Amino acid sequence: MRDTLHLLEQTIRERRSADPTASYVAKLASKGRAKMAQKLGEEAVETVIAAMAGDRDGVVGESADLLFHLLMLIADMDVPLDAVLDELDRREGVSGIAEKAARPKD
Amino acid sequence: MRDTLHLLEQTIRERRSADPTASYVAKLASKGRAKMAQKLGEEAVETVIAAMAGDRDGVVGESADLLFHLLMLIADMDVPLDAVLDELDRREGVSGIAEKAARPKD
Amino acid sequence: MRDTLHLLEQTIRERRSADPTASYVAKLASKGRAKMAQKLGEEAVETVIAAMAGDRDGVVGESADLLFHLLMLIADMDVPLDAVLDELDRREGVSGIAEKAARPKD
Amino acid sequence: MRDTLHLLEQTIRERRSADPTASYVAKLASKGRAKMAQKLGEEAVETVIAAMAGDRDGVVGESADLLFHLLMLIADMDVPLDAVLDELDRREGVSGIAEKAARPKD
Repeated sequence: MRDTLHLLEQTIRERRSADPTASYVAKLASKGRAKMAQKLGEEAVETVIAAMAGDRDGVVGESADLLFHLLMLIADMDVPLDAVLDELDRREGVSGIAEKAARPKD
Repeated sequence: MRDTLHLLEQTIRERRSADPTASYVAKLASKGRAKMAQKLGEEAVETVIAAMAGDRDGVVGESADLLFHLLMLIADMDVPLDAVLDELDRREGVSGIAEKAARPKD
Repeated sequence: MRDTLHLLEQTIRERRSADPTASYVAKLASKGRAKMAQKLGEEAVETVIAAMAGDRDGVVGESADLLFHLLMLIADMDVPLDAVLDELDRREGVSGIAEKAARPKD
Repeated sequence: MRDTLHLLEQTIRERRSADPTASYVAKLASKGRAKMAQKLGEEAVETVIAAMAGDRDGVVGESADLLFHLLMLIADMDVPLDAVLDELDRREGVSGIAEKAARPKD
């Protein structure tokens, strides 16, 4: 078992208030939520494009960017990663026979 | 420590070839990569909008959707979650003083 | 010369306050700006995917959806289409030799 | 009546094969379809964010960017703007009482 995402979440929370000239995290955080949301959207677009191009290495890199910027954005909202994982567990907990019914969005 | 995402990855891989009428995973997988990429993009847009609206519960739910559909898409590319986490570890490994230099994209 | 977009803008402005059960425009407008922004983002994702798939008919249809929902969103902001076209004219006016300099975003 | 978009379409088609160091159009075209699709997606995200922030000037600028990059992308697909406008006219032609029925996507 590994915990890359929780470690990264911790790093992000520590660096958010660091010197913006010394840390990408601090620099992006200093630009505000709209900029973090923009980066998340952009990385999602790049992931989509890499997937459509069948570019596996590209998908690896863009997915990493996407996860990083998602952690940046939820940290800015003061939403812990565990709240998101809890939500995934909760959905999975009602799955099995009920999976389909619990996912109204198609 | 917890492993929600790896468990979800395993569930997705198991259900991809299940009966599309019994499983959301199988249904979405049967529609092909473009549909999975579309869902990823849509959930990113919804995450962006929830964040801009300051809606913390919305961000939790949309981030969960985003992670779920990211796992769907990389499974379809036969990219393991660990490849993405390795990439995040690799970047973090070159961080500290070097963090900024290793992140050319601004 | 044709004026499809200005006519569509006028139709949208007229129908925004119509009966939501009788008009897609009124129905979407009644759901608020976040929903209109979401639709714009979704149609852009679909346009991107159709383009990456080399699907010309798909690009035509998705681009039409994108333009329609862009007009919906700017109407909701009370931004006239002409303000957007003015901005494009202004940029083009400074183009020629200066085009590159006037487009700092790469 | 004005024809900003058709003029811009013509300019884009003329400049696509120009010197990439002298023209933003030529530079972007030289990077290929994936890059143009990426820019379209990014500008849509920025339009969404400006709208959610209630930033009217931002929406004007980002919408102009979005239209510009949409014209770039459809030119790369050899899809004329008129094909997209025809599609919008066709939909509008079946509207009125039938509007709702003709728009299955909600």
